[in-house]
Order: sequence, then structure tokens, then C-alpha cells
Amino acid sequence: LKKRDAVAILLAGRALAPAKAEGRGAAAANIALCKYWGKRNEELNLPITSSLSVSLGELGTRTRILPCAGRDEVALNGQPVAARSKFATRLSSFLDLFRPAAEFRFRVETDNSIPTAAGLASSASGFAALVLALNDLFGWGLDPRSLSILARLGSGSAARSIFDGFVEWHAGAAADGMDSFAEPLPYEWPDLRMGLLVVSSEAKPVGSREAMRRTRRTSVLYEAWPIKVAHDLVVIKDALREGDFDLLGRVAESNALAMHATGLAAWPPVLYWRPATVAQMHRVWEVRDRGLRVYFTMDAGPNVKLLFPREEEPSVRESFPDVQVVAPFGPEAG
Amino acid sequence: LKKRDAVAILLAGRALAPAKAEGRGAAAANIALCKYWGKRNEELNLPITSSLSVSLGELGTRTRILPCAGRDEVALNGQPVAARSKFATRLSSFLDLFRPAAEFRFRVETDNSIPTAAGLASSASGFAALVLALNDLFGWGLDPRSLSILARLGSGSAARSIFDGFVEWHAGAAADGMDSFAEPLPYEWPDLRMGLLVVSSEAKPVGSREAMRRTRRTSVLYEAWPIKVAHDLVVIKDALREGDFDLLGRVAESNALAMHATGLAAWPPVLYWRPATVAQMHRVWEVRDRGLRVYFTMDAGPNVKLLFPREEEPSVRESFPDVQVVAPFGPEAG
Repeated sequence: LKKRDAVAILLAGRALAPAKAEGRGAAAANIALCKYWGKRNEELNLPITSSLSVSLGELGTRTRILPCAGRDEVALNGQPVAARSKFATRLSSFLDLFRPAAEFRFRVETDNSIPTAAGLASSASGFAALVLALNDLFGWGLDPRSLSILARLGSGSAARSIFDGFVEWHAGAAADGMDSFAEPLPYEWPDLRMGLLVVSSEAKPVGSREAMRRTRRTSVLYEAWPIKVAHDLVVIKDALREGDFDLLGRVAESNALAMHATGLAAWPPVLYWRPATVAQMHRVWEVRDRGLRVYFTMDAGPNVKLLFPREEEPSVRESFPDVQVVAPFGPEAG
Repeated sequence: LKKRDAVAILLAGRALAPAKAEGRGAAAANIALCKYWGKRNEELNLPITSSLSVSLGELGTRTRILPCAGRDEVALNGQPVAARSKFATRLSSFLDLFRPAAEFRFRVETDNSIPTAAGLASSASGFAALVLALNDLFGWGLDPRSLSILARLGSGSAARSIFDGFVEWHAGAAADGMDSFAEPLPYEWPDLRMGLLVVSSEAKPVGSREAMRRTRRTSVLYEAWPIKVAHDLVVIKDALREGDFDLLGRVAESNALAMHATGLAAWPPVLYWRPATVAQMHRVWEVRDRGLRVYFTMDAGPNVKLLFPREEEPSVRESFPDVQVVAPFGPEAG
């Protein structure tokens, strides 16, 4: 099954004809508390396990899409993007799935409020916003579940960025991926804060697609990963239900560490940490030993993301002067 | 079964009476290429898996033991050691197993040629040398296998330091540990070199006994560790048989990384690496990408140990100016 076949199932005969002059979409970035790590189908971005994230409130992507002539045009934060860049070619090949005719071209204007150096994946909110904009342009009126699946075809974790707040992406079991979509969870934690610590904004030495593939194929520790996830998902949902911040923090931190651990036993080894990453990790453990309620998570990169309750913000800012604080449920919340 | 019972089985009625004025023993330190990580019996230091090491040639421990009056006396590198220190109390409680009478006291003079800041475990060569010295003092004439088991009762990896060169410690299966001993392997690699890189000589935040226990009990990744070891032992022995240095290096590095990885998923997490550890790891990967045949291993601490063939020594010294080079099969070898 190809992406194109999955799109045909989802659109179910809906027209590929613009219903209006332009389409718009907006989506928040998300940080997984239980990670997506390993694909069972690389074409369709079908994951081996479910995952769970929290969206980043104001940080995300706004996208406007409209027909144009000649060739696809891409602008990022107001600047034109070279057609041959990785960014534009990935976008264009996703748009190939939705062209009304072979010669049809799109203009995509996308604005990221994610600080580019923050080490946050912009592909999740990027593909989610793009799918929402396409749905608007073509007037499909798709349900959120179908939008989540469409976004997943662009980038796995984009399935989660269709929603705000706490979101679970169900792994699903179907070969066509129609049961592999995200859903919002009915919990709000206005007091939750995240802290972004930028260690390095260099490009990753190994992309996450290649890292997942290598880990799944060569690391014997990966065999335990689905067991870890099955356990962590249950406990994170318990923590959300009971409002137990420390339980949430503990499981999120352990889940991230285990994800990174599986890559160490791959060959060649996969290690995203830089020396400063490890310094920040030890710093978190030190201040936590002194009573601060702070935990961390990390994605496939060197940067560290803190989790803490609102009342710890002054102490966290004191211990981590460079931290950028994000309020997932809005800055006024709490 | 207690240590004392295991000693009774091994001594099989041999006298606990000094056969001479003093006993002497010497043993080399060892570095595991396939790690000992996890005990199935903490009293008897019985491991969950087998392990395989190479001894460090000239680096090790020489010990002299003789009867004395009053209280146990311990001297380390010519300096008296306080009776209440961790070092002396651990020694005395091991010696309790061998006192001819309740009031019998030992004087132990031990010299380590391991640089104290090198981050090398001295307990392996220390307990091996002590057991050899006791065997000499009491005139037991024990076979090497029994000496290896006795040394294991002092410190697990001491079982391997009874022998030089490549050594395998068999996990064994018996409840009394009588099949858990080390044996030398029939391979010599005069060209093999090890490089010691000292990152930190601070005391470990978590001792290896506690780290093993915590990892075994709380890290789901530990379930894959025995599978990894079973595989790595086969491949390391293939590499030794075939003289394949790169295969040996690859498996030793992967084994060490996997050992450290299991601790990351423990709670609280176990991480021995410091920022400088990660810097050295990246440095090894960088120079290897440029063609240098160098791999690393790491024990339960922050220091990095390089593995390379003799002909790479000049390049290794250039890339790692602080390296201390060791020739496991003698400096004249190769």
C-alpha cells in the first residue's frame, strides 16, 4: 500500500478542486511524554507502539496554501525557500498526493512560532497545519481522525499535532493504517510548564527515520521498548487522571532515557547527546535531589526539555538561566 | 548458603594454620570486553551472565600477608590505611573467612601499580592477589579454579584476575557457585593495546553493586542484557580465534554501551557518564570515521578505555594526548 492509496481511502471520492481562493491551517508543536520510536511501515509512517504527547500552546505553525502557476513556491517565515532544499522537496512530494492535475502547483506560506534554534521538531506542527490548510482549500470537511491520518503520512508525529493538550496516537494494527490516528485526552493541566534548554542547534548527525530503522534492526535492547511503552502509557494516563505531577514527570523522563538507551546498543551506535546535554541532565538530577520538582524529556536530538509545575518556575529559572518557559495550556492558565 | 559455607567446600578440610612466615600474591587488573553486569546471588557474587576480559599486563596488585597481633593492619602503597576506612573494613570482613582462631589478626601490605586516578577497579586485582597470598601463607596448594572462586567471593570480577591474558568467567548455574569460575582462553594478541583516558577520579555517585541491583530490579531494558551477552560472547571468541581486531572492537564497544544503556531505564536512572565522557566518545567516533582503528569500552564509571592495534599507537596519541597506553601482553610484545 502506498501513501496515494491511503489518501484515496481517506478522501473517499472527495474532489481535488479548490473550493475557495486559499486555505488556512494552524497547529501546535508537541512534545511526546511517551515517545514514538520505531516504524512498522516506513511508507505509511505506521508506528510500532502508541505514543502520548502534550502540545506546546502558542508554539507551532500557521500555514496558508493557494494555487499558483509554474512551480511550487514555498515561503517560510516570510522568506522564499529554494525549490531544491530538503524542506521544499519534502513538502512538494507530499503535495504530489493532492494535485488536481499533473501540472497543478501550490504556493505554501508557512510561519513557525517555534524558535528555530529551540531544537523542536517543526515537522509535526508543519504537516498538521498543512493538512488543515488543504482541508480548508479543498473544502473536504474531513473529521479530525482522518486529518490525523493524513498528517501522519507527512510526518509520524504530525498525527498528534492535529489536536491540542494531551494527545494519544494509537499505533493501530491495520495494514492500511486506518486505525493509526491520534485523539485528544480529556485532561487539562493549566499548571503544567515546560522549559526548553537549547544545547545545540546544529543539524542532527543521524535523522530520526534512519536512527529508528537502525535501532529496530540492530539493537537487541529495542525488543524491550514496546514493553516499556505499554507500561508507561498506562502509568502516564493514571498520572493524568489523578493529577499526579511527580508520577507524570518520572515516567516521561524514564521513557525518554529508555528511548535514547535503545540507540546505544545499535550499530553504529546512535547517540544524540552532546557533552552539554549530559551536563543539563546531571543538573536536573542535582536540583531534584535538593527538592525541586523538575523532570526532563528529550527527543531525537541533543536538547533537553524540562517538565515542572507552575509554582516551581522561579526556582527553575534560577537553576537554568537560559530556559525558555512554555505554558501548554496558555500563559494565563494556572 | 553463606560465603563461609562456600569457603568450607573449597578448602575441603585444609588447615587454617600458617605454613610459613608470610604469603605473597600478585595479580593483574582486567578490563571486561563483555561485561559482568547483574548478580543472581549477591552473597556469593554469582553473576547472571558469563563475561570475558583481558588482563592489563604490568598494571595490577602485589600483596604480602602475615600474622600479626592486636588488630588487622592494612598498608596500601606503603601507607597505613585507617581501620575504619571502607577499604580496610571490606578487607577485614573478607579475612574473617580465613582466621585460624577468633583472635587471629593479619597484616596486609598491598601495592597497586594501577594509577589511582586511572579509574580502574583495583578490587579485581586486589582480591585476586589477596587470595593468592592466603594460598601461599596457608600452603593450601589450591588449583586455579578454586582460587578463582575464592577471589570471586571477595569481588566478582576478581575471579578473572587470577589469570593473565584473555579470560572467560563462566556464570555457572549451581546454587553453591562451584561452577562459577574463570578460565584463561588460549589466545595471545601481542599487538593489542589499550588506552586509558581519565575523565574523572571522583568517587562514583552510585557503587556498581547498587547500580546492578537497581538496574536488574527496575529497568525493563535489562531483560535484553543476557541475550546481548550470549551473542557478544560468541562473536568475541570468533574474533579472538580469527584475529579480527575490528570485530573484537565493535563488539566490545557495543557491549559496554548496552551495559550503560540498561541503567538509563532504571529508576532512579543510573548514568556514570560525565560531559567529558561523551566528548571522548564522540572523539573516538570522529577519528574512526576518518579511518583510525580505535574502539572504546567503559566500566561502571565515567572513564573511557580505548582498544587499538599497536600500529595505530602514534595516531591514537596524537588524537588523545592524555592517553596512557597499556600493552596487555607486555610492552616488548608485538
